[in-house]
Amino acid sequence: MTKGIKLDFSKTLQAVPDIEDWVRAIIPRLSAADRAVRSKRDSGVLGFFDLPYLNRGKSDIKNIAEYINENFENMVVIGIGGSALGNRLLHGALNHPYYNQLTAEDRRGCPRIYVRDSIDSDSLKGLLDILDIKRTAFNVITKSGGTVETMANFLVLKDMLVREAGSDRAKKSIIATTDASWGDLLGIARQEGYRVLHIPENVGGRYSVLSAVGLLSAAVSGIDIEELLSGAEYADRDCNGGDPYQNQALMGAALQYIAWQRGRPVSVVMPYSDALYHFGDWYCQLWAESLGKTKETDDGKIQMGQTPLKAVGVRDQHSLLQLFLDGPDDKIFTLFEVEKRKNSFVIPAGDKYCENLGYLGGSTLQKLLDSEFRATESVLTKRGRMNYKITLPDISPHTIGQLIFLYMLMTAYMGELFGVNAFDQPAVEEGKKITYRLMGRPGC
Amino acid sequence: MTKGIKLDFSKTLQAVPDIEDWVRAIIPRLSAADRAVRSKRDSGVLGFFDLPYLNRGKSDIKNIAEYINENFENMVVIGIGGSALGNRLLHGALNHPYYNQLTAEDRRGCPRIYVRDSIDSDSLKGLLDILDIKRTAFNVITKSGGTVETMANFLVLKDMLVREAGSDRAKKSIIATTDASWGDLLGIARQEGYRVLHIPENVGGRYSVLSAVGLLSAAVSGIDIEELLSGAEYADRDCNGGDPYQNQALMGAALQYIAWQRGRPVSVVMPYSDALYHFGDWYCQLWAESLGKTKETDDGKIQMGQTPLKAVGVRDQHSLLQLFLDGPDDKIFTLFEVEKRKNSFVIPAGDKYCENLGYLGGSTLQKLLDSEFRATESVLTKRGRMNYKITLPDISPHTIGQLIFLYMLMTAYMGELFGVNAFDQPAVEEGKKITYRLMGRPGC
Repeated sequence: MTKGIKLDFSKTLQAVPDIEDWVRAIIPRLSAADRAVRSKRDSGVLGFFDLPYLNRGKSDIKNIAEYINENFENMVVIGIGGSALGNRLLHGALNHPYYNQLTAEDRRGCPRIYVRDSIDSDSLKGLLDILDIKRTAFNVITKSGGTVETMANFLVLKDMLVREAGSDRAKKSIIATTDASWGDLLGIARQEGYRVLHIPENVGGRYSVLSAVGLLSAAVSGIDIEELLSGAEYADRDCNGGDPYQNQALMGAALQYIAWQRGRPVSVVMPYSDALYHFGDWYCQLWAESLGKTKETDDGKIQMGQTPLKAVGVRDQHSLLQLFLDGPDDKIFTLFEVEKRKNSFVIPAGDKYCENLGYLGGSTLQKLLDSEFRATESVLTKRGRMNYKITLPDISPHTIGQLIFLYMLMTAYMGELFGVNAFDQPAVEEGKKITYRLMGRPGC
Repeated sequence: MTKGIKLDFSKTLQAVPDIEDWVRAIIPRLSAADRAVRSKRDSGVLGFFDLPYLNRGKSDIKNIAEYINENFENMVVIGIGGSALGNRLLHGALNHPYYNQLTAEDRRGCPRIYVRDSIDSDSLKGLLDILDIKRTAFNVITKSGGTVETMANFLVLKDMLVREAGSDRAKKSIIATTDASWGDLLGIARQEGYRVLHIPENVGGRYSVLSAVGLLSAAVSGIDIEELLSGAEYADRDCNGGDPYQNQALMGAALQYIAWQRGRPVSVVMPYSDALYHFGDWYCQLWAESLGKTKETDDGKIQMGQTPLKAVGVRDQHSLLQLFLDGPDDKIFTLFEVEKRKNSFVIPAGDKYCENLGYLGGSTLQKLLDSEFRATESVLTKRGRMNYKITLPDISPHTIGQLIFLYMLMTAYMGELFGVNAFDQPAVEEGKKITYRLMGRPGC
């Protein structure tokens, strides 16, 4: 049985000795945040809570995944924001690191997976250069059914597909993932007879990775989605109640909130695992779009939000670490370690001509990586830089499911502590209106 | 002839109307910064200035590139930090977006290029799964010759190569790029008879992309390195003198410095071009490692540095933009637009079932992207968020050469304005020592 992922804040205690006083001081607020989130959950407005349960054992996603698997060589996910970053997270973490470059046999016959969240013409041409469009399934994802980038890409690609493969084959190659009851995409899908999957009305884009949004392409590439959901359920049961010492999602939120209170508006995630590279981008959207809000108070408007920053260990020790250590003390660091990797490489004894490297001989890459992790933890702590770590027993669908759920819950708690709505994104609407006007949309 | 890239700060004037007063107020300091940088250049300590001239028409890099091209299917660059991020920048910008997935024919026979800057065992196993190691050239890059991650990867891969291909073939498959006169790698290379390229002693890692560090893998993949260097030279001649209105590198530094003075410690780069995705990572190292410094003053120690943040348009409009607009006003934004792309896609008229999308019909993806660029510029400006743009006429070796040089020079100016050494990285040494100790290096 997979062990749970663990948040360990012992380094925070060393770096900022009075941190526990700060945590204790806000325990009533933390408990209130937990009650508020539970109450919203009970009233059905926070749909992401239900996803681990709703989708267990369901056949619709699996049936369509099987259909794609049997009939196509490639799958292109057309989406943007929450309809793209979750897919990248899952593939980056759980598929082969060079999945799309494997032979079909090494992919066990599963299609290659591409995520298209750009409207850059040159990268679209690049994608078309390497795909046989007739052997490609397109999963177009937009909850509202009207996301302009997604629909523009969809219209361009559908048109090509019809021309190259014919209208009948095109209809069979397109899968629409959208709201169950309204929107332009749903209208087209019904008229054309596309296969359709639904996003629950109460699940926002950046909280949707465990819905059909993320699960379909995961299932197509052979990721065990039951295990993923089971991991999320595990985290849901594990992170419970208003005591931060018993609920690590609440402790995570408490540390981030205290960091913000104490002049650390930048929140760095730094996984020491290449598999978690795309987790960073997913986190950045979740954190930025949920918590970057202006709130009205009796004293006027206050601009809230932490700036999320993705770093990667060990690479960014040779890039960002100098700033992290000697620059302004305005950051809180979450370091991620993975206890057990699938592979091990022994470093051979160095040549006699490089005596300085002799100490590496007989050690392993993993030991070197672990040593660098500990070194970074240690220098950050020594300089009083607030940091804590999250340990994953391994990288598996179960632990990734846990991690996703932990972070969605932590974000919901942060919304309560910040006093902002963590589930809307009002500011981006203004830019959309300007785009509509520039593009000549009627009435704009 | 390629036009020059342009820095346009007209939106800054609208967002922050008194900005010109601020610029005028520091003109003496800006001129002094320019003089200081020129003087360091003249005394030979800033080697990056010479690279565009030093490497023009030189045969050593080209000869080795030709040799690799003729004898190998793949090339793996083993490096980290400045010995990896510059390579990614060049390949991301100037090669096909899915270069490694093209057929050999579509690559015109050029080898696939991989950059290995990780010591994660699982991603190394992944890389070995897709490479025929016997047909792979390894370019190991470390200026000091002792970078632990690079040498660990090198020792592991060399050992495998010897076992699979034999010691003779291994010697012919390894190219060492390192200092000309000292270091462990140089010692091994001489003993084993590897091909060797040199990094000038006065060029630091993050300023080395236009040396053999970046040029070899670029030349191997068919990038026109003469044009790249010619672009850098163009920028060098263009960015001259102590008047920020005549020298856009100095104006860029002035805006960043004023942003920092006025409570904006986060510097966002946001290219509206997929080709510039990896430019963002290169920039983050350059900015963070050069400027994130603690300096001694009469009033004690001051922690300097801006936190660099990479965003990508249009994608991150659906991720970070909410925070950029409604969150704290603590950022300065550099938006990058590209005037001319190689490809164009017309958006077909939408189906009759999606009347709301009709306005897109007949337009192009490029027009949509440009409209979104303008919309983002406009909403940032309206909310008083400090932003300016850099326009590239196109993405070509010449404009990328310009961009690289512009940013290295801007960083040198920032070092003068901040009063810090932009060419060292003292804080990371401490972590290295802890790593050495944990790994059992003698004397540590």
